[in-house]
Amino acid sequence: MFDNSQQFASDNYSGICPEAWAAMAEANRGHERAYGDDQWTARASDHFRELFETDCEVFFAFNGTAANSLALASLCQSYHSVICAETAHVETDECGAPEFFSNGSKLLLARTDAQGKLTPEAIREIALKRQDIHYPKPRVVTITQATEVGTVYRPEELKAISETCRELGLHLHMDGARFSNACAFLDASPAELTWKSGVEVLCFGGTKNGMAVGEAILFFNRELAEGFDYRCKQAGQLASKMRFLAAPWVGVLQDDAWMHYARHANQSARLLAQLVADVPGVSLMFPVEANGVFLQMSEPALEALRQRGWRFYTFIGAGGARFMCSWDTDTARVEALAQDIRAVMGAA
Amino acid sequence: MFDNSQQFASDNYSGICPEAWAAMAEANRGHERAYGDDQWTARASDHFRELFETDCEVFFAFNGTAANSLALASLCQSYHSVICAETAHVETDECGAPEFFSNGSKLLLARTDAQGKLTPEAIREIALKRQDIHYPKPRVVTITQATEVGTVYRPEELKAISETCRELGLHLHMDGARFSNACAFLDASPAELTWKSGVEVLCFGGTKNGMAVGEAILFFNRELAEGFDYRCKQAGQLASKMRFLAAPWVGVLQDDAWMHYARHANQSARLLAQLVADVPGVSLMFPVEANGVFLQMSEPALEALRQRGWRFYTFIGAGGARFMCSWDTDTARVEALAQDIRAVMGAA
Amino acid sequence: MFDNSQQFASDNYSGICPEAWAAMAEANRGHERAYGDDQWTARASDHFRELFETDCEVFFAFNGTAANSLALASLCQSYHSVICAETAHVETDECGAPEFFSNGSKLLLARTDAQGKLTPEAIREIALKRQDIHYPKPRVVTITQATEVGTVYRPEELKAISETCRELGLHLHMDGARFSNACAFLDASPAELTWKSGVEVLCFGGTKNGMAVGEAILFFNRELAEGFDYRCKQAGQLASKMRFLAAPWVGVLQDDAWMHYARHANQSARLLAQLVADVPGVSLMFPVEANGVFLQMSEPALEALRQRGWRFYTFIGAGGARFMCSWDTDTARVEALAQDIRAVMGAA
Amino acid sequence: MFDNSQQFASDNYSGICPEAWAAMAEANRGHERAYGDDQWTARASDHFRELFETDCEVFFAFNGTAANSLALASLCQSYHSVICAETAHVETDECGAPEFFSNGSKLLLARTDAQGKLTPEAIREIALKRQDIHYPKPRVVTITQATEVGTVYRPEELKAISETCRELGLHLHMDGARFSNACAFLDASPAELTWKSGVEVLCFGGTKNGMAVGEAILFFNRELAEGFDYRCKQAGQLASKMRFLAAPWVGVLQDDAWMHYARHANQSARLLAQLVADVPGVSLMFPVEANGVFLQMSEPALEALRQRGWRFYTFIGAGGARFMCSWDTDTARVEALAQDIRAVMGAA
Repeated sequence: MFDNSQQFASDNYSGICPEAWAAMAEANRGHERAYGDDQWTARASDHFRELFETDCEVFFAFNGTAANSLALASLCQSYHSVICAETAHVETDECGAPEFFSNGSKLLLARTDAQGKLTPEAIREIALKRQDIHYPKPRVVTITQATEVGTVYRPEELKAISETCRELGLHLHMDGARFSNACAFLDASPAELTWKSGVEVLCFGGTKNGMAVGEAILFFNRELAEGFDYRCKQAGQLASKMRFLAAPWVGVLQDDAWMHYARHANQSARLLAQLVADVPGVSLMFPVEANGVFLQMSEPALEALRQRGWRFYTFIGAGGARFMCSWDTDTARVEALAQDIRAVMGAA
Repeated sequence: MFDNSQQFASDNYSGICPEAWAAMAEANRGHERAYGDDQWTARASDHFRELFETDCEVFFAFNGTAANSLALASLCQSYHSVICAETAHVETDECGAPEFFSNGSKLLLARTDAQGKLTPEAIREIALKRQDIHYPKPRVVTITQATEVGTVYRPEELKAISETCRELGLHLHMDGARFSNACAFLDASPAELTWKSGVEVLCFGGTKNGMAVGEAILFFNRELAEGFDYRCKQAGQLASKMRFLAAPWVGVLQDDAWMHYARHANQSARLLAQLVADVPGVSLMFPVEANGVFLQMSEPALEALRQRGWRFYTFIGAGGARFMCSWDTDTARVEALAQDIRAVMGAA
Repeated sequence: MFDNSQQFASDNYSGICPEAWAAMAEANRGHERAYGDDQWTARASDHFRELFETDCEVFFAFNGTAANSLALASLCQSYHSVICAETAHVETDECGAPEFFSNGSKLLLARTDAQGKLTPEAIREIALKRQDIHYPKPRVVTITQATEVGTVYRPEELKAISETCRELGLHLHMDGARFSNACAFLDASPAELTWKSGVEVLCFGGTKNGMAVGEAILFFNRELAEGFDYRCKQAGQLASKMRFLAAPWVGVLQDDAWMHYARHANQSARLLAQLVADVPGVSLMFPVEANGVFLQMSEPALEALRQRGWRFYTFIGAGGARFMCSWDTDTARVEALAQDIRAVMGAA
Repeated sequence: MFDNSQQFASDNYSGICPEAWAAMAEANRGHERAYGDDQWTARASDHFRELFETDCEVFFAFNGTAANSLALASLCQSYHSVICAETAHVETDECGAPEFFSNGSKLLLARTDAQGKLTPEAIREIALKRQDIHYPKPRVVTITQATEVGTVYRPEELKAISETCRELGLHLHMDGARFSNACAFLDASPAELTWKSGVEVLCFGGTKNGMAVGEAILFFNRELAEGFDYRCKQAGQLASKMRFLAAPWVGVLQDDAWMHYARHANQSARLLAQLVADVPGVSLMFPVEANGVFLQMSEPALEALRQRGWRFYTFIGAGGARFMCSWDTDTARVEALAQDIRAVMGAA
């Protein structure tokens, strides 16, 4: 039943990690107050405040689409715009969710550098391009950490971006669907990669790092959180049995399982990259920093790989394939994949 | 840690039932395709089609707020209106979610009969009250089964309503947060209580009957489901690890656990009602049909009950208290509550 | 072609007054900058600031639906609610426009006193009824001056309301579709009836007092106007040839034509009321203060009146008829109407 | 007061033409029913049906922002997308209005050919690029006739586009802000340029061709117009004194003034182009077909032109200047402008 070959298609193909599961089991004892007025929600929130070394406001939403879109909507009015990378998930894969939740805020696409990152220059260019009333007024910058192409913003890059934002009167939001992987790669503290670098709101993804559902939204600038509880409720993102969204966070945060798993995912990616580094005809499209490996290979080679049963995405342009590692990636499967890549390239 | 006294506050204070839990555990094996393209989603959908004896379209959303609001939005344009009971949950407890998801559809409140139900007459009165362009055009009727006051629409009542809807050009939607309890009370088939009685769309609640998250949306009129997958995605209601929303449904549907639990909840409510039937000063506000008991008692008596540690809602008017039973309500606790009600009334 | 009998159906059945027309003609000379960057818009804005004795922010919208809805949307987030009279035009005759522009803000209906006015008590009751996250959070009170039933808030009534609003953290908006008539009736200054009494935003109606299109939105609290220009543009309410919305205001404001006409409309209404005061079977439903007369008469009498060609609205309940006077109401027609009322009642 | 030098900045800097003015004056006699239930609205609608040789549904909105956005919203659900040229006015100059009115529909930008037009290939490329649920589903194509760069779609081009749309299941909408100029250039009938070529909905602009406010929305596919009256009302686009939006259309349509003026504007543009055709350093960026002339000149030359008092837009890229002619463009001013262009280029 379990299809090993799908293991590299997406990190959300993975299941629930033992720590999250155990916490859910523990939370599943008897009755508890609903809508977040329970002990697990309180505990999870405290864990976040401790982990981030600050008294942030914490909310939970069911998935990343909603978490990011609600966060952006809370920073925007409908006539504002959001500056994002042309490769940003909110632009390419949310079916217009940011526009829906904000009732019309436009996403303005900024070019990225060779590593798929926004730069102060790119932000400034977009933010200053139009200053008239006939075009939505830029109000927020959103960056993805780690990026959609597996790279990671360094603290100094974040600081340069947040300074540009401050100067231009823009809020700074971070889509942290793979924030764990960024922390693991840099061995930097969550605080350093967020509010200490000027990030005002973080959507911290749990789903891709061992949970079933449930992303956390952290407002480091507490004033921006005003009314966010109502916003979540109205938008269908307030769980009645909230403990089952919160408990898994307690599970993965209390003994650093989140970091452990993120490291494993990153290492798996690095291993795959290393194992195919010397294969002729295969090249890395982006540095392997987080848990994704983007390989440039010929189309026939990719097809041959598919014939061998492997599943992966190829949305990055002709001949580009994405292999994602997750919290439970099997090292033997990484080696098998690497071997098959070598094999199909040899045959080509 | 587990506070027994909260057991009657709400049926969403309860946890996850064993069958749902076991199915989640089974689903948590290895990797699975995301976004509903997995075997569990297919299996759950098939279970629904079998249970409802029809080839309906099946979708899953995270909670009832979203399920109902998305369903209504799919039946409406922003300038349409939705006719509902003045006590309907979509009106009283969703923080404007239907208006948000539909971008402005107005809820028109129809008076209910003594049992908290809509009638053809009440619907007709509201639907025909205004026919001009300056008022939102009625387009949908939504009814709650079982109702918010614990009563249940009979098949002939549903048929009379759906005939009125058809005549007036209105769609018919059912909020089935406690649909299980209605089926259990009437011992009627899900088909009879829905499409066979003219219901076009049902939001079938799982949370209040033993699940963690996840409501099912069933379109019996398949044409109405066009684009609903996109609608869910855009509105942040498409789970990436969908198997964890679908598997619990497989768990509770495959061996009729859903019916078993609903019966238990209903019986618990009936027991409570019976045990206090002869207590002077206590009267039933509504017939006890589903899993809720609504008692009229003096305010001091309610306060005395609170002093003894019991938790319950009192939103039904002065001196009205709601006691909800759930899939895991403890009979001993029902008896203890009844005894305390008798005690506080005796003291009063 | 011109049907005199329609003269009392609505004050928006009237045409453009000479002063507005002359200003439009004058504005129609050659080319002018678009989108409000023209001299007429500047002049009209200055006229408003002078008239209201304060440096308010001034915007123009095409009609009252948009002016009021945009103003409310600027004071609300989607999860907020707006407290209004159950008879408020935004509730009864805007087809859900406030909900649409705000993306879902709910209107909460407060009961009115015998004169169709909101009171501090009614506002407080609604504002404090629900304080939980499951119901939209009250954020704005909107009052209509003059009211939909032809009565007028006194300065002390406005002050009492605004004090209640301040205490409860609510903004205060005034729908001034017939603000002119209120000023004329009270002989009070526009300043006294707005910001000096705590009103933060006024939608000042021009259409019902001699203009073709174009309502003015005045923010006395300038901070609340942030981004309102973008909001208007995005919502399709920024006129390219703005001079034709602004010039008529210059026309009616510069020599107090607006006051002159409002007085005439009010006097016409008063005359009608006086002329039928002694007719048996006819009674006033509300005091005649602004430009509307609401008469209680038997249904057969109303029908007989219609047979004689008169047009009027009867939405106020059984046997209630509304007769509206306008800037150009013909005194002879008022007398003819009064005579016919007397005649049909005599026959009855 | 009248600044001649602004005459080429925009065609909406012009005023109201005599025919529109006279009709407004005629309409301004006595009282008339409101909200479109008047004789002028009926007459204007009939004129459109006669002009377009078909029984189309006719609506009026205040401006082009609203007309186009409402039309698109009526063809879309929020999760759909609209394919438009990267230069389309709805994308570049409506401040997110289409996204606002549709509650989130995304605009997908298709590349244009050298004449600023969409092609079947470009439409197909965008429409087929993404077919998954994570990206808004293409539902409408909107084209601007005449285009934003002054070119005009030929009937055979329109037919090729509409065939592509039909094949791909897309609706076809035409933004006709300068539709008159397109008809005048091609000497083609309005019917031929719209429904006979497969256009389903046309927004016919009046403002840029001699009116004060008011665009007409014509549904050739009448089924698509269902509920559009309610949509206009809710969105603040139903004029109470509708006669003043409709009468000007009667004025310009009844004796073909609209065509006369469009021809004049086109001829003025052509004249300007001819007069500078031999000026060294000046080149046409696009063929001059409608009423705009796009000149490529050096930045210093443009600056020198500004010094001489001329006003024009330069949003088309470095060294590109747009000169718009209108219904009342003065031939002497065209010659003066041409002379100054020659002069500044000679100096450069």
